[in-house]
Amino acid sequence: MNGEKVKVAIVGSTGYGGVELIRFLWGHPHAEIVSVISVSSAGEPLTDGFPHLSEIIVQPLDGLNPEELAAKVDVVFTATPSGVSAKLVPQLLEAGLKVIDLSGDFRLKDGSEYEAWYKHEAPAAGFLEEAVYGLAEIYGDEVKGKELVSNPGCYPTATLLGLIPALSAGWIDPASIIIDAKSGVSGAGRGMNLTNHYAEINENMKVYKVNKHQHIPEIEQTLGHIAGEPVTVTFTTHLVPMTRGIMCTMYAQLKGAYTEEDLIQLYRQYYEGRPFVRIRDNGKWPATKEVFGSNYCDIGFAADERTGRLTIVSVIDNLVKGAAGQAIQNLNLMMGWEETTGLKLTPVYP
Amino acid sequence: MNGEKVKVAIVGSTGYGGVELIRFLWGHPHAEIVSVISVSSAGEPLTDGFPHLSEIIVQPLDGLNPEELAAKVDVVFTATPSGVSAKLVPQLLEAGLKVIDLSGDFRLKDGSEYEAWYKHEAPAAGFLEEAVYGLAEIYGDEVKGKELVSNPGCYPTATLLGLIPALSAGWIDPASIIIDAKSGVSGAGRGMNLTNHYAEINENMKVYKVNKHQHIPEIEQTLGHIAGEPVTVTFTTHLVPMTRGIMCTMYAQLKGAYTEEDLIQLYRQYYEGRPFVRIRDNGKWPATKEVFGSNYCDIGFAADERTGRLTIVSVIDNLVKGAAGQAIQNLNLMMGWEETTGLKLTPVYP
Amino acid sequence: MNGEKVKVAIVGSTGYGGVELIRFLWGHPHAEIVSVISVSSAGEPLTDGFPHLSEIIVQPLDGLNPEELAAKVDVVFTATPSGVSAKLVPQLLEAGLKVIDLSGDFRLKDGSEYEAWYKHEAPAAGFLEEAVYGLAEIYGDEVKGKELVSNPGCYPTATLLGLIPALSAGWIDPASIIIDAKSGVSGAGRGMNLTNHYAEINENMKVYKVNKHQHIPEIEQTLGHIAGEPVTVTFTTHLVPMTRGIMCTMYAQLKGAYTEEDLIQLYRQYYEGRPFVRIRDNGKWPATKEVFGSNYCDIGFAADERTGRLTIVSVIDNLVKGAAGQAIQNLNLMMGWEETTGLKLTPVYP
Amino acid sequence: MNGEKVKVAIVGSTGYGGVELIRFLWGHPHAEIVSVISVSSAGEPLTDGFPHLSEIIVQPLDGLNPEELAAKVDVVFTATPSGVSAKLVPQLLEAGLKVIDLSGDFRLKDGSEYEAWYKHEAPAAGFLEEAVYGLAEIYGDEVKGKELVSNPGCYPTATLLGLIPALSAGWIDPASIIIDAKSGVSGAGRGMNLTNHYAEINENMKVYKVNKHQHIPEIEQTLGHIAGEPVTVTFTTHLVPMTRGIMCTMYAQLKGAYTEEDLIQLYRQYYEGRPFVRIRDNGKWPATKEVFGSNYCDIGFAADERTGRLTIVSVIDNLVKGAAGQAIQNLNLMMGWEETTGLKLTPVYP
Repeated sequence: MNGEKVKVAIVGSTGYGGVELIRFLWGHPHAEIVSVISVSSAGEPLTDGFPHLSEIIVQPLDGLNPEELAAKVDVVFTATPSGVSAKLVPQLLEAGLKVIDLSGDFRLKDGSEYEAWYKHEAPAAGFLEEAVYGLAEIYGDEVKGKELVSNPGCYPTATLLGLIPALSAGWIDPASIIIDAKSGVSGAGRGMNLTNHYAEINENMKVYKVNKHQHIPEIEQTLGHIAGEPVTVTFTTHLVPMTRGIMCTMYAQLKGAYTEEDLIQLYRQYYEGRPFVRIRDNGKWPATKEVFGSNYCDIGFAADERTGRLTIVSVIDNLVKGAAGQAIQNLNLMMGWEETTGLKLTPVYP
Repeated sequence: MNGEKVKVAIVGSTGYGGVELIRFLWGHPHAEIVSVISVSSAGEPLTDGFPHLSEIIVQPLDGLNPEELAAKVDVVFTATPSGVSAKLVPQLLEAGLKVIDLSGDFRLKDGSEYEAWYKHEAPAAGFLEEAVYGLAEIYGDEVKGKELVSNPGCYPTATLLGLIPALSAGWIDPASIIIDAKSGVSGAGRGMNLTNHYAEINENMKVYKVNKHQHIPEIEQTLGHIAGEPVTVTFTTHLVPMTRGIMCTMYAQLKGAYTEEDLIQLYRQYYEGRPFVRIRDNGKWPATKEVFGSNYCDIGFAADERTGRLTIVSVIDNLVKGAAGQAIQNLNLMMGWEETTGLKLTPVYP
Repeated sequence: MNGEKVKVAIVGSTGYGGVELIRFLWGHPHAEIVSVISVSSAGEPLTDGFPHLSEIIVQPLDGLNPEELAAKVDVVFTATPSGVSAKLVPQLLEAGLKVIDLSGDFRLKDGSEYEAWYKHEAPAAGFLEEAVYGLAEIYGDEVKGKELVSNPGCYPTATLLGLIPALSAGWIDPASIIIDAKSGVSGAGRGMNLTNHYAEINENMKVYKVNKHQHIPEIEQTLGHIAGEPVTVTFTTHLVPMTRGIMCTMYAQLKGAYTEEDLIQLYRQYYEGRPFVRIRDNGKWPATKEVFGSNYCDIGFAADERTGRLTIVSVIDNLVKGAAGQAIQNLNLMMGWEETTGLKLTPVYP
Repeated sequence: MNGEKVKVAIVGSTGYGGVELIRFLWGHPHAEIVSVISVSSAGEPLTDGFPHLSEIIVQPLDGLNPEELAAKVDVVFTATPSGVSAKLVPQLLEAGLKVIDLSGDFRLKDGSEYEAWYKHEAPAAGFLEEAVYGLAEIYGDEVKGKELVSNPGCYPTATLLGLIPALSAGWIDPASIIIDAKSGVSGAGRGMNLTNHYAEINENMKVYKVNKHQHIPEIEQTLGHIAGEPVTVTFTTHLVPMTRGIMCTMYAQLKGAYTEEDLIQLYRQYYEGRPFVRIRDNGKWPATKEVFGSNYCDIGFAADERTGRLTIVSVIDNLVKGAAGQAIQNLNLMMGWEETTGLKLTPVYP
């Protein structure tokens, strides 16, 4: 490091993912925010839309020119919508920049799968191959030194961290997996629609996109990779009246008489040395607020003797471990820094 | 009716179930609240604890003497805790009163099952046999003229109304049922504990009593009765940051290639003439706020071709269809009145 | 009445005021909803946007033709935006209909004042004169038999009911009035803007339109009418993270050594026979949830000896007493029915 | 610093103030948490009650022995209830420790005033004199090198930072000050009472302790000190359904024709070099969420020409600038470190 900070830019700074990136980068000891970019609002102050950053981000928003950007910064975070990243990221890579992409555009290895679920044209196959899927606790070792990291989705992060150790150990039947996922409202972003209207979702709970969510192929691709065979899941998403937080309650048939203690031991071994996954003690369950504002993923278990079914509960903050926090974790891994750099924040409780 | 109203009393008026009973009875054309009873607060105004009833309930709270009560009223609602009803209800019946009990004490036919799950002594077997399980849309015809109705629990009501038509038709595998239930905080009552503290549960989501909730035997007893064989379910309960509302997301293996349209038709036929169950159109899902404050149970479906699994979502207001509203519905059925009397209120939205 | 119901229509049925009108009219013994009108969505089912009314409102939305409407109904509720009512209401009146208007268009007697605050062209002066300001507890006697009632705004209702008795008695200095008003989010309607976005206003509190709210002239007009001299107020509006409810905390200099008991007595006398205003006992304060879903306005007081200042707190449900409920109350008064007809609902608590 | 960290202990670690202190100290570069103390729960893991600190605070809770503590640490934060600190703090000081006290016990210079408002015995007068009132932006220069800092209350912090510049400049009439304060629920602490019950305060707004809050003498003492004459305020406190955040809307009569621009300039000059106070631009108002989780106090203004009244709005996070954050700020000032050390966190938004 010899004292010099790595220079970073954020594209798509006017969304929730963008301002969370700023929160973590502002306190990061080895990185410096050099450019905060919004194509649609270039020249305006970021604080018009986000006054909480008053006197923190004082320069106006920049426009986007990949060549000029490459002269100023080393790494770009693209917190841009699906379909936009697909076109933008190749330009940034060709300009010599490293990219951590927070959209869904580079997560699926099979472009036709992407097009079926996202309804946008897929990036060229070469880029899809090049991209590392940055689920840090699973594929973190592959991130180091890479040019393009595809940051996982929020639901897949909570789901996969909760399922992989048991699936990898062969303890659960891959054909039996049901994921009942619940998310706070910020997961849908800052765009306006009636579902996000306070009077509509406060004191309310909704279910949506049952078995149709675009995060399904990302989950199945990764589970299939771990299981060594295709995996098909049942996946339900719910909207809960809170701003942040994802809880995934997952069900699978156990392939043996494993107890909660067995599972705790298995998971603690699997995640040893990975400080952002915390396995609850037997009989304890994680709650979303216990990871609020932080990069943790907390996990708990119940193995039911009566039915032979395993229940796994995992929680994350969708904007942190499910987006900006994991992106910073990937920056750390990419640059060879300590994984927790700039992320060593306790959850904000209560 | 010849113009005279049936006289009713409420025991346990200082809980949420009690004040909801008052809400519905105050506007009921054939019933009159004659006594509002609280053993612990007798002599005090109800409005000390519930000022929203100022100038509505003006008499002080009464104490409880079954004989005297029998001289004044015809029907008693017991919104008393588990263990209390077990002792109180027989006294009321013996005094010649009709009783609608909102506790769990008379729901299980097998007293030892009750004792295992509730940790209280069970009522005498005769009373357990006498009690009708007042799940109105299923067993409503048996309620008419009965002396003792055991009002179903909130989770069982949402669960059973969602599962019974498909189970009864033999369309789902009884061994495959998983119930992922979510409830607002009022379900835990007005008693204080840290879980109910606003700062702890606001902007939070918790999971609790996984496979251990005392409503499980009530669900399994009824499903077993419908299926004609013992049924064991996986049952998870979650606490969601809202005051009212239950959503049950239920999963089961389909025994044939049934489509959503088939299910909608099956359920609409099953519930024909039952105005409080509403089956959503294909592709639409119910939300808890769409039944807020009302006696409706709304249901939606997804049948997944890929996995052969059925997803059923049912919602109720836990304090209405899950407690006081269904109790009034049972009063109506018991007395031979129109099922909707005093309950014809639209949901309060937004 | 001779058994026949008065036929009513609602224009602007796709807003929150509209569906609240439906809630109260559905249970109203003397009124029948004959037409539910939305110019923009004519022909579509109302339940597309408001599924909570499934199986309750089954006919599709009607378009609007004043002549045809006059052939079918007796009274029209116009829950239309400011500027729209100004043009529509005269047409309805000319077609022979009675109108209860929920917009701000007919509240100000001085058209130029209207234009200054609302930025729309005012209705013709004749209509402004004809309109009765339907603050039911104050001007209710003038409503009977009228053709056009202008239903008060939500903030003015809470403010005026809280201030008028003390002002009318000459107990407070009209020049000293400060109104610190707080509202739930539904007051801003169903239209989308960033302020209503759940993630923005949940766990947040905002202040807006300080001394600039369009309800100010309506408050000052009425206070001036009561005081017999012009009154200028300081008026601050806040947005609170809840769906329903307005609380107005009001400050004024006392003109004598009046105690809380004096005030309670004054107010109870003033509102005698007016069942929807409830004055709290000494030392008790009203909370917004204690009127949730109901037509009540609850009021409490503190008289501070140290400063000679009076603090008045009044609460209403902005969509009920502040909109649809008071409109039904005005229908009752207009038709000569009991004031509480169809409104005798306890607050929904908790 | 020569590399060695200052050793600190927290007494009263099982409240919200305590865990917020841990949040800031865990990331503080010059301080190290050596002991986490709870008299009532000594020996138990802190994470039993606060699982969000799993794998962060792993040692069990310590008991309290001032002599032994003095051998281990340099500075103690006492986040103990009023009445407890009064007795404890003198013992800690006598053992040679520096103390930052978060209770109200050392804020009032006049012990009899303390006893009148707090209903506890006051600490000895010598300790009251010795204590510096740590309102950092106003009295920060006096904190350096002191042994005992009395950390201000949450309401006083928001109130005083909002009023002092205008009062100090003689622009407002001290006799005219009205403070309409609103707070999130965490301000009442973790103790259970019905007011904190989620079902009671969600979707609700309450007013309490009107002109009777124990923070009033602290506000009046400081305003009197600034004004050079006794100041009496009208002070209303409200409970708002959110976890964190205080908004004070304050009213005062202007003594001249000052504009919003004048006020902005005055305040920005007054707080120059004080990074935690942010003055909003003309026409912009702060919202509580814009300081959530951070140590900022944001302020906005409206000067009303019609009434000559000034409206000031100030917001803080009650647990941060109103408690733990300001305590850390006082630690920094006490030790001669940069004021922002360990506090340079952006608000958590949304």
